[in-house]
Amino acid sequence: MQLIATPQSMSFAAALPLQSGASLRNYALSFETYGTLNADKSNAVLVCHALNASHHVAGVYAGQAKSEGWWDNMIGPGKPLDTNKFFVIGVNNLGSCFGSTGPMHINPDTGQVYGADFPVVTVEDWVNAQARLLDALGIETLAAVMGGSLGGMQTLSWTLQYPDRVRHALVIASAPNLTAENIAFNEVARRAIVTDPDFHGGHFYQHGTVPKRGLRIARMIGHITYLSDDVMNEKFGRQLRDAVLAQANNTAGDLDAGAYKYSTQDVEFQIESYLRYQGDKFAEYFDANTYLLITRALDYFDPARAYGGNLSLALGRAKAKFLLVSFTTDWRFSPKRSREIVKALLDNQRDVTYAEISARHGHDAFLLDDPRYMDVVRSYFESMEVSA
Amino acid sequence: MQLIATPQSMSFAAALPLQSGASLRNYALSFETYGTLNADKSNAVLVCHALNASHHVAGVYAGQAKSEGWWDNMIGPGKPLDTNKFFVIGVNNLGSCFGSTGPMHINPDTGQVYGADFPVVTVEDWVNAQARLLDALGIETLAAVMGGSLGGMQTLSWTLQYPDRVRHALVIASAPNLTAENIAFNEVARRAIVTDPDFHGGHFYQHGTVPKRGLRIARMIGHITYLSDDVMNEKFGRQLRDAVLAQANNTAGDLDAGAYKYSTQDVEFQIESYLRYQGDKFAEYFDANTYLLITRALDYFDPARAYGGNLSLALGRAKAKFLLVSFTTDWRFSPKRSREIVKALLDNQRDVTYAEISARHGHDAFLLDDPRYMDVVRSYFESMEVSA
Repeated sequence: MQLIATPQSMSFAAALPLQSGASLRNYALSFETYGTLNADKSNAVLVCHALNASHHVAGVYAGQAKSEGWWDNMIGPGKPLDTNKFFVIGVNNLGSCFGSTGPMHINPDTGQVYGADFPVVTVEDWVNAQARLLDALGIETLAAVMGGSLGGMQTLSWTLQYPDRVRHALVIASAPNLTAENIAFNEVARRAIVTDPDFHGGHFYQHGTVPKRGLRIARMIGHITYLSDDVMNEKFGRQLRDAVLAQANNTAGDLDAGAYKYSTQDVEFQIESYLRYQGDKFAEYFDANTYLLITRALDYFDPARAYGGNLSLALGRAKAKFLLVSFTTDWRFSPKRSREIVKALLDNQRDVTYAEISARHGHDAFLLDDPRYMDVVRSYFESMEVSA
Repeated sequence: MQLIATPQSMSFAAALPLQSGASLRNYALSFETYGTLNADKSNAVLVCHALNASHHVAGVYAGQAKSEGWWDNMIGPGKPLDTNKFFVIGVNNLGSCFGSTGPMHINPDTGQVYGADFPVVTVEDWVNAQARLLDALGIETLAAVMGGSLGGMQTLSWTLQYPDRVRHALVIASAPNLTAENIAFNEVARRAIVTDPDFHGGHFYQHGTVPKRGLRIARMIGHITYLSDDVMNEKFGRQLRDAVLAQANNTAGDLDAGAYKYSTQDVEFQIESYLRYQGDKFAEYFDANTYLLITRALDYFDPARAYGGNLSLALGRAKAKFLLVSFTTDWRFSPKRSREIVKALLDNQRDVTYAEISARHGHDAFLLDDPRYMDVVRSYFESMEVSA
């Protein structure tokens, strides 16, 4: 049976103090829940989203067959995170463009759209906002927090900010902080957006423009880093787009499918066509200020920073049990980065399970249906005890 | 003794047919030579340049102490490629922006600046143009052709297009073609340039503009791929720019060097500052149409293509002896790609020397002073017999 999802929203009048020193008041969080909260409220699992995802984690919207949540393969009745057993909560983060208060909303202090004035939010701020939502839902302790990539950072941060409220943490395809190369890719994407003349210093809404050129470039860069070199070669290799089109139309005879066009601006290779398509699609729906905010939250996350870079000291506060998963061809957040977290947790005698999954799909693997990966997560949740 | 370089230029009236079917006439090639051609003209070495380099390979210009050629550590009196023994030639490729005929010059057919109408040139076209220059210099056979990265592709192509004119080929940090990921990075850079409103379809010269935003993004992406993740972490890590500035000015006391600024647009990390600087510098001197042309030449190069992808068949024509060098942390043109060439040459019983240098600097290593690398090249040239 397909899960039907219903988006909800909750408003918060009280100001949320942010790490930057600024604060947000009169904000709303969009969220969805799946399954049923049990009597002693011990079966709640919070799922944290990554860069361009949302609170729509699982299921479909009524009457919209193609509207699956972004982790619908993972979460639902009988799935690895089984909504027959667990009460699952997805929350859209502050600063996002999918419902929760973000740069395109009105700043209550000025009556104007926030735009570039939306305060910088951090992983820690998001976790604090999520905790307030759980307070409002009457959930004191989470059976688990779970997330991949940036969602994994929020998961890790939950165990440090609210060690007594998290029993299990599932940190997937994540890292304890960004490397210089990670920051570098984020910075190029941000520069592409900020220097797009349609960005207008982040106040493009009032100019009736969208910095689509910048968003396209940002997304294209992102896509390259989500995939592995191997899988790109497998899927696209050096295939020419015309050859692929001719094959699809059975017109190989009509067209010299092997001929180069010798053009610098036309699409020549299939990989170019794929990237342009991804860029165009993204620029239609994603908010430019949100992109800046979320990549900055990635850059800033670094729990070891307050401990002189010593991750083992930083993770000393965590009390949860952990599952870490990494993927061999992920070069954005490589297995090495997950192992740093595992090592730091073991230094603190924490209960850690670690699975390094041999997968060809790079960073994207955490969203895909690898059976070994799914089994690891399923087993982990199956062994978790909650009241009926 | 410092080598003094003198740029020269040679004009060619006869049309050069290009792979695309187009042709170029009344074009000029800028070049430099170092050392002395011996009596039987057997000591000539052609050095081919990569993306953003030129004919100014070695030495300095008179009165300009800081004007070292881009491979000055490799080439000169007593250096690995010793100009006391060899007559070295550097040529600027067609389509470049450093002197040879390119997009910013006048199209003799129209009397207008070429701009985006400059024909697409390939590695094979460049090699043909270089061969004509050698004809004009009266050099029939080269002791060696040498190049790194895209220069290595030209070197490899020389051995296939003119097998009887090349005795040795030094192919450094190169590849037999680009992978999908390589093409993807080129495409993002090109899109950043082409979608810059100041590009004007490639005819920006007549608008008095330069698509600097696009060039900056292109260069930033390039720089990320030239360096290794390790060396980026070593050089920049997560260092904050203000902390670095405070250290440099000994004002750590005045400034909380450890504090984040919480800004999405200001430079926060040192790696951002480095990339922006590299982008700004590049946009001041590099031509946007040249960038498109050169990255496309990279994309198109694929000698195995005419042989159904069989590189061993493709390299069967080569008669030269080969030295291949790769660098362990080069993820742009990884050692694996060099090994493909080595394997294909060995399949043809060719004389191949291969050195895989353990180096931390990624693709950039081919321009740097690794002593083992320098020694390998030095030995290779020392063992080469030429008349006095």
